[in-house]
Amino acid sequence: MIHRDRNAKSTLPTLAVTVGDPTGIGPEIIVGALKDPSLYRVCRPLVVGRPEVLHRAMGQLGSPMAIDSIEDPSEGKPGIDRIACLTCGSPNAIEAPQGMIDARGGQAAYDALLFASRLALADQVEGIVTAPLHKVALHQAGHDWPGHTELLAEICGVQQYAMMLYLPPREDRKDPGLMESGAGRGGRFGLGVIHVTLHMALREIFAAIDPDAVFEKVSLAREVFSRLRRAYGESQEPSIAVAALNPHGGEMGRFGDEESTCIAPAVERARRLGWDVEGPLPVDTLMPRAVQGEFDAVVAMYHDQGHIALKLLDMFDAVNITLGLPILRTSVAHGTAHSIAGTATAKCSGMVQAILAAARLARGGWREDARRSVRQGDFAGG
Amino acid sequence: MIHRDRNAKSTLPTLAVTVGDPTGIGPEIIVGALKDPSLYRVCRPLVVGRPEVLHRAMGQLGSPMAIDSIEDPSEGKPGIDRIACLTCGSPNAIEAPQGMIDARGGQAAYDALLFASRLALADQVEGIVTAPLHKVALHQAGHDWPGHTELLAEICGVQQYAMMLYLPPREDRKDPGLMESGAGRGGRFGLGVIHVTLHMALREIFAAIDPDAVFEKVSLAREVFSRLRRAYGESQEPSIAVAALNPHGGEMGRFGDEESTCIAPAVERARRLGWDVEGPLPVDTLMPRAVQGEFDAVVAMYHDQGHIALKLLDMFDAVNITLGLPILRTSVAHGTAHSIAGTATAKCSGMVQAILAAARLARGGWREDARRSVRQGDFAGG
Repeated sequence: MIHRDRNAKSTLPTLAVTVGDPTGIGPEIIVGALKDPSLYRVCRPLVVGRPEVLHRAMGQLGSPMAIDSIEDPSEGKPGIDRIACLTCGSPNAIEAPQGMIDARGGQAAYDALLFASRLALADQVEGIVTAPLHKVALHQAGHDWPGHTELLAEICGVQQYAMMLYLPPREDRKDPGLMESGAGRGGRFGLGVIHVTLHMALREIFAAIDPDAVFEKVSLAREVFSRLRRAYGESQEPSIAVAALNPHGGEMGRFGDEESTCIAPAVERARRLGWDVEGPLPVDTLMPRAVQGEFDAVVAMYHDQGHIALKLLDMFDAVNITLGLPILRTSVAHGTAHSIAGTATAKCSGMVQAILAAARLARGGWREDARRSVRQGDFAGG
Repeated sequence: MIHRDRNAKSTLPTLAVTVGDPTGIGPEIIVGALKDPSLYRVCRPLVVGRPEVLHRAMGQLGSPMAIDSIEDPSEGKPGIDRIACLTCGSPNAIEAPQGMIDARGGQAAYDALLFASRLALADQVEGIVTAPLHKVALHQAGHDWPGHTELLAEICGVQQYAMMLYLPPREDRKDPGLMESGAGRGGRFGLGVIHVTLHMALREIFAAIDPDAVFEKVSLAREVFSRLRRAYGESQEPSIAVAALNPHGGEMGRFGDEESTCIAPAVERARRLGWDVEGPLPVDTLMPRAVQGEFDAVVAMYHDQGHIALKLLDMFDAVNITLGLPILRTSVAHGTAHSIAGTATAKCSGMVQAILAAARLARGGWREDARRSVRQGDFAGG
């Protein structure tokens, strides 16, 4: 950890990487990712879960590594041939068959998440990185949450939070995904898309979008990109675009009025604070501009408005970052992929990116900022 | 025209290309496109508008061509150095300043569209291709339509129509746009996205989406891709995916129920007819599959669901095809771009693609099929 080790030899942040649902591809993408030497230059990744699940993944990948079971995050020297594992959860996790939805898998994901979150809340790790869980398995295990994000908000006792999909900057990425051209894929600091509404029926979003909700997400976007820019040694205001809700941005009220009643007031408020915020902009022409590096972040009004663009840009390397928590948390943006679990075919580049992004955010001062913000209620929207 | 010339030397379809709003980039992209020799191998493009507007564009492009003013579509021999122009509209079109919204520009676009549509309805041309108009200028000229598509439906007296954004197949395109990778950009016949709802507030779409509306668009998608496949000498059923409305496809009713109440019944009905239709599929994971060639067409529930993906794939070369009309009509997918009008910087590749797509659809038997369908009320939804 940065603080405890400040005067010791290592100042790299310690990250807790949860195995997620062991019936999915989580264990194998973690084992694959932890073979990447670039990780160890920027962080100390520890795995949280059952070592036997990691052993099975190594066998299936034909990729043996030593596993050191540790009891305290300060122990262990993880590296490309050695995993440090904080054991947690029931040993029956290994009994849940790979590729199947199983309550034991859901419980294992839940246990690892809770364990890792508590380490982060207790300052024993700088942040957490999560492998995917399956909502139905989570539900079968008695935990009825739509996903990691909402569950983490509950664990942390936070009301105001947001999910950001993040595409790391081109130069930090090994797999260019579908889009390869020099036309670009976000700016120097990557491209983030933050959602005002997330896991709800499209019909319900109108009641959830108001100037405070939009402003809060603009504020969270600005904060996370301030940290990312800081990690790159840059102090300029982050550049944020806010998407319109209606087609063509509503065409001055012809096709809906949320642009003038909900979005423009939030943008005005942000601009009065001196922030670099533009909008509302019709989303279909905004996204190509963002991809070409014109904005750090796009504030999207609903799930698919953001997800269509980023998953098209990159199904695999997109990183999910939870904003508004007192802890730092990143995740792969894909799911458990049960259909290929255990086949050693899953791409691990998303997990590498999720770990790198967490390391970068820790370097940018995530934890201190986030705690201060949550304490001061910066995002409460007034 | 195909029919009149069937026994003559030429069997190439004649297309009427409207100049659109002369204050925008329409004239210059037409002049630029008509320098492309590939067009003349597949069609006879005639321009509909004012020759003085074309002259000005040629001057600005530094690209002189002869202009033959013709009175009948059977006249004229268009080629890379010679434009055949069917003069229509007021001579004051040239007085509307470039780059400015002006009622004279709106009126010129309206006049050219009406003229071209009537030629098509009278079988004097095989199809029409339109350069962009500006809705506000159209409105200022006293014609209150949201755009070309709705106006054309009115001219043709059609109630059931749809707009398809179409990305031509990779091999037919010169400019690969943002996405260049071998991962693909639609299948052999290109990629189409058809919209169940279009120019309306997002809040209003729920009342407009029902099993009949979805089925009608599936039917239109199948019909246009049957013709495109036929133009390529292929007779297999088009492959169509239908997008879900809610995030994650509603997760079995957790986030909305339109998937089961509106979309699944339409898909079932189509499948009972032996059509190759899949859905509802969560749109954020569907789009990458479609881009990789898994489907010919995607039926999207609302404007941005389709436009985000296709404009991200290609802002310039996407073609707009109006389905359900008794006439064949394609268009560029971008607008008048007033900010660059007259600067000779507009890309004309979208106009080339719009003309090529119209020629291909004419070859695939668009007109005969479309007339039969409209007459028989195939799409009335019952």
